[in-house]
Amino acid sequence: MIEIVAVEALDIRFPTSKTLDGSDAMNPNPDYSAAVCILKTSVDGLDGHGMTFTIGRGTEICVAAIEALTPFVIGLKLEDIQADMAAFVRRMTGDSQLRWLGPEKGVVHLAAAAVINAVWDLWARAAEKPVWRLISEMEADDIVGLIDFRHIHDVLSPEEARAILADRRAGRAERIAKMQREGLAAYTTSAGWLGYDDDKIRRLCREAVSAGWNALKFKVGMDAAQNLKRCRIAREELGPGRRLMIDANQVWEVGEAITHVRHVAETSPWWIEEPISPDDILGHRKVADAVRPIRVATGEHCQNRVMFKQFLEADAIDVVQIDACRLAGLNENIAVMLMAAKFNKPVCPHAGGVGLCEYVQHLGAIDLIAIGGAREDRMVEFAGHLHEHFRDPVDVHDGVYWPTNNPGFSVAFLAESIATYRYPNGSYWRAALRA
Amino acid sequence: MIEIVAVEALDIRFPTSKTLDGSDAMNPNPDYSAAVCILKTSVDGLDGHGMTFTIGRGTEICVAAIEALTPFVIGLKLEDIQADMAAFVRRMTGDSQLRWLGPEKGVVHLAAAAVINAVWDLWARAAEKPVWRLISEMEADDIVGLIDFRHIHDVLSPEEARAILADRRAGRAERIAKMQREGLAAYTTSAGWLGYDDDKIRRLCREAVSAGWNALKFKVGMDAAQNLKRCRIAREELGPGRRLMIDANQVWEVGEAITHVRHVAETSPWWIEEPISPDDILGHRKVADAVRPIRVATGEHCQNRVMFKQFLEADAIDVVQIDACRLAGLNENIAVMLMAAKFNKPVCPHAGGVGLCEYVQHLGAIDLIAIGGAREDRMVEFAGHLHEHFRDPVDVHDGVYWPTNNPGFSVAFLAESIATYRYPNGSYWRAALRA
Repeated sequence: MIEIVAVEALDIRFPTSKTLDGSDAMNPNPDYSAAVCILKTSVDGLDGHGMTFTIGRGTEICVAAIEALTPFVIGLKLEDIQADMAAFVRRMTGDSQLRWLGPEKGVVHLAAAAVINAVWDLWARAAEKPVWRLISEMEADDIVGLIDFRHIHDVLSPEEARAILADRRAGRAERIAKMQREGLAAYTTSAGWLGYDDDKIRRLCREAVSAGWNALKFKVGMDAAQNLKRCRIAREELGPGRRLMIDANQVWEVGEAITHVRHVAETSPWWIEEPISPDDILGHRKVADAVRPIRVATGEHCQNRVMFKQFLEADAIDVVQIDACRLAGLNENIAVMLMAAKFNKPVCPHAGGVGLCEYVQHLGAIDLIAIGGAREDRMVEFAGHLHEHFRDPVDVHDGVYWPTNNPGFSVAFLAESIATYRYPNGSYWRAALRA
Repeated sequence: MIEIVAVEALDIRFPTSKTLDGSDAMNPNPDYSAAVCILKTSVDGLDGHGMTFTIGRGTEICVAAIEALTPFVIGLKLEDIQADMAAFVRRMTGDSQLRWLGPEKGVVHLAAAAVINAVWDLWARAAEKPVWRLISEMEADDIVGLIDFRHIHDVLSPEEARAILADRRAGRAERIAKMQREGLAAYTTSAGWLGYDDDKIRRLCREAVSAGWNALKFKVGMDAAQNLKRCRIAREELGPGRRLMIDANQVWEVGEAITHVRHVAETSPWWIEEPISPDDILGHRKVADAVRPIRVATGEHCQNRVMFKQFLEADAIDVVQIDACRLAGLNENIAVMLMAAKFNKPVCPHAGGVGLCEYVQHLGAIDLIAIGGAREDRMVEFAGHLHEHFRDPVDVHDGVYWPTNNPGFSVAFLAESIATYRYPNGSYWRAALRA
């Protein structure tokens, strides 16, 4: 019997703004950070680790929200959560007083993600499997039982979800074997941060190509001439056969987005990511109509399943970029993957930051094996930062992910990293704040 | 010279769950609460008071968010904020690290509302005018200068906003005089909380009618038979000439909403409010198409101007229910009122709770005088709870609001109420938590 007896919430921040790693048009100087949730159990040595990703200031607000959610987990037995996980999720995201602060969006939803994913880490460790395998081996009914269908029934019913999952049952073992043989398709964002100069991006493009990458993403912004120059450098280095994606991180108006994308169309971008406000479903539809065959991608700031539902039913996006910890954890991500499967749109999970790559190797594998069931146009994002702080860092080489075989959800930090980067009392920050 | 020298953030909670005041289908037991922001200035006796409304647990998270925003106001001179208030708002809502936690939604946006509205209170006190008069007397260009048009340019440009405001310039003095003579149209929600039994709602309906109310709102929920019974009681007491509105507080799926509304159609509801998820623009369009001529209303949980933009352009709502402190304060509310004016949809501000009535008397008056410019179908919500805790409580009688003539934004709490209901250390909560 495994009982959750305590919750530890941590504020961990890395000073990435110093090197402009991660810089983009909306976020010029992120300090990649995590609001961490650790579930302590009655079993010695068995914990559950989750986190939500932030970029510096405000991580303490997410920590406060995780602390507000602790009454929904402390004292629970793992087996009781497992018996009806959708109900467990609903109790947390549907608590009327806390729900008022969203509902199901922003800080309270980010915090719910950390807690729910920590439960998954615990479940998977107890089962001695990685999360991706745990889900991939479940029966369709059990996966349906993970999902809160509230407010998406008009587009995805439990019966439809069950049918999609049952249909993907065939070939699961073969897809697992093939993934373990050939890896999980990926792309890298490490070469194209906005704060890097032309020489650095050309050098990084070359290094990426020689390291085996077949798809790269570049940040673009408000300067049309600079966008075109950067895209041309990328296309020169990538050649005609590799994919170039571009990412505006929400800085454009609808009309600007259309103009800017057309301006770089000669470099054949595979997709334009976050061209406008992430809340603007109808605006994405306008952009998509105007720039096709260039695809429109969004999702890392898409707040919940209700928004994804509309992006899909309005045919406003071509690529579904789920985020492991902006949606309320794995359960809501599975709901969105099922809707993407229904509309036959590829899921390309958002990553980078800190911990997101560790998380999304599981999401990408689950989509491939159990939900989407296809490899075509699916790619998991990768950025090569901060993996050294995890107990079980991702294995990415030859341009693909090699999903972990270790138990859990892979976002447990090393004790030494926590001691150094805990904010404001870790050794790094004590020294930095003193200076 | 008025300088903001300190910020005080307070957690104030009222134990309203004990009496089921405010109970609805989604929120069975709210404890009406406020995360308060008080700006202390260099001028003795001159403060700015703002708040965001919450319903209990999690108010401390909003307080943490207000504290995270203090660097954006401390040290500023009021005249510098006044010189470009849109830029002031953008610095706060656009700070890249904090913006990641929304963007522009949830806890960080609720906190921004408290701070921005506190600035308006300060501005209005310094000008010795109520906020509604301060805005109503501004020139069109100055009002346009309050608005952050980011991500709404495709539907409302600064030029269009200026034209709307200029058009409403004629007749302002007459509309002010008429409002002061006849009051600001209103409706009451006090009779129809879901937790009240049939006898109580019948008695409260009768009291409301004899007190002069011409429009009442009732909470409805999942029980079709009970909904019909409650609506019939209301219609019997109201007679055919008064308006009955119904409010489902988001509990239905799209299909359920259509079924439930048709089930009570014989009682001729004026509008159905929050039938489904507040994020579901396309779903509201489906409901609106199916239940007309019954109107669809939403907005109290509408997170920002980008969502309202889409509700309006998709013709998904008929009534625009702005919230004084879920949108980022008065500035973003003005942006939404302008879009509503463009689409010729009535603005009916959300209120009730604690402090919301005090706030929205100003919004309703501003829309009437300077933006919408019309009385037709406009009504400001009223609920008769907790007004005794404010220094300048609303004056509502004969079924209408009588907007305040006192300086400020009207949400400053009495010192005694703060001392009693501050959580967890006010005298009420110390005793209650001990018990």
